[in-house]
Amino acid sequence: MTNETLTNLVSDMATGAIRVVDLSVPLDENTQVIGLPEEFEQSPGFKLERISQYDDKGPAWYWNKISCGEHTGTHFDAPGHWVTGKDYNDGYTDTIAPEKLIAAANVIDVSKESAEDADYVLTADKVKAWEAEHGAIEAGTWVLMRTDWSKRTGADFLNIDENGSHCPGPSPDCIEYLVKERDVLGFGVETVGTDAGQGFHFDPPLPAHTLMHGNNKLGLASLTNLDQLPPKGAVIVTPPLKIVNGSGSPLRVIALAP
Amino acid sequence: MTNETLTNLVSDMATGAIRVVDLSVPLDENTQVIGLPEEFEQSPGFKLERISQYDDKGPAWYWNKISCGEHTGTHFDAPGHWVTGKDYNDGYTDTIAPEKLIAAANVIDVSKESAEDADYVLTADKVKAWEAEHGAIEAGTWVLMRTDWSKRTGADFLNIDENGSHCPGPSPDCIEYLVKERDVLGFGVETVGTDAGQGFHFDPPLPAHTLMHGNNKLGLASLTNLDQLPPKGAVIVTPPLKIVNGSGSPLRVIALAP
Ligand SMILES: [Mn+2]
Ligand SMILES: [Mn+2]
Repeated sequence: MTNETLTNLVSDMATGAIRVVDLSVPLDENTQVIGLPEEFEQSPGFKLERISQYDDKGPAWYWNKISCGEHTGTHFDAPGHWVTGKDYNDGYTDTIAPEKLIAAANVIDVSKESAEDADYVLTADKVKAWEAEHGAIEAGTWVLMRTDWSKRTGADFLNIDENGSHCPGPSPDCIEYLVKERDVLGFGVETVGTDAGQGFHFDPPLPAHTLMHGNNKLGLASLTNLDQLPPKGAVIVTPPLKIVNGSGSPLRVIALAP
Repeated sequence: MTNETLTNLVSDMATGAIRVVDLSVPLDENTQVIGLPEEFEQSPGFKLERISQYDDKGPAWYWNKISCGEHTGTHFDAPGHWVTGKDYNDGYTDTIAPEKLIAAANVIDVSKESAEDADYVLTADKVKAWEAEHGAIEAGTWVLMRTDWSKRTGADFLNIDENGSHCPGPSPDCIEYLVKERDVLGFGVETVGTDAGQGFHFDPPLPAHTLMHGNNKLGLASLTNLDQLPPKGAVIVTPPLKIVNGSGSPLRVIALAP
């Protein structure tokens, strides 16, 4: 029982006609996580505790215990993460249809704009201009916002001052357009969360959470290596851990790219 | 920039010519994990703690903290999990080449044999008989041992008596053959670990660990839905979390099947 496309997938990977690109950041105690205003409960970062390492606790084997918040490092936002998406039966990490875990990606490069303005906001007009150049965004595909933010290290990544975090993100009209006019699968970013650092001041606040999840759409945060993908033509694999009733999950995101 | 195979992948998924099959078990407090003799340190099961759920700890959002051993539920065994594989620089969850995370799968059905004998051992001869029927196992592909063990629930899954666990697994000569004659990518099973329940009595003991990892090969345990895959023709995606120096990881395994 064979399918020619799957046969070609294996052979194109072998020849290098299809590249495999890791879009995930490493997980250790230095992996950066979002911080919330102090009146809210915080999400813990990644922690690893050794169980044994070829020693009297396990002479032939090495293994660890791990712990973290579901939204740590490169991670998946399920619709149920947000109150607007809480009633979708297929909106949690264990109930999302497997077919949604592999899909084409549109990569919108706003890395120059983001370098000039840490509060850069991606608008619907900018998306339409990108479509005029690269072609329309198809239903059921990912939109990935390339900001090169993943190249930032240390405090420059969260980029916090007395007014909060300053990171680029989408405008309400951008998300509205992607959801209503384009019926996308979800929205992914290189920053710590899918919304702009100042997105709580938007109307509605945090549109990538409020509107995307309110329409049963997905999110991806803390992606890296988006500069290795073409504007169109890549397929990304985004399989969250199958946490029962999970709101999201750290995950390994892999791209298949021309 | 396009690749015809990737274009076809998306369209074949849309038409159903390619099915997406979830090979992963749910993660919650009931997810079964391996138990070791009491002189060794145990690996903890999956635990989830709520951070907030649309309440005063986070009015618009729901999220949890998770913790578990790296080898919990459907999980990935990296070569460094075993002492025989500890010196491979590319043998840990963060250093394995991304190209190894998507590959073709050979599914060897020994479900009838396993139903008749819980200590059923898959031998090299049995693999050769399977190859005579279905074609040779290619280098760089997965061998998945279908036992229908994932259909077992409760105590029947670990199947422990006074002599330890009784679950099917591979013989030393089977693993030797797959490594030396076939140069496979790895070996995957539906049981809690890649070796037979009585595999510590084999020579060498625990061949799927000792020999596979000793040759920089991978493992997958606690798979499910292998009965939905053809003997040949499926491609599986096996992306572990990018844990720095991780010995393995719970993961979501997704198959693309004709
Ligand atoms: Mn998140
Ligand atoms: Mn394991």
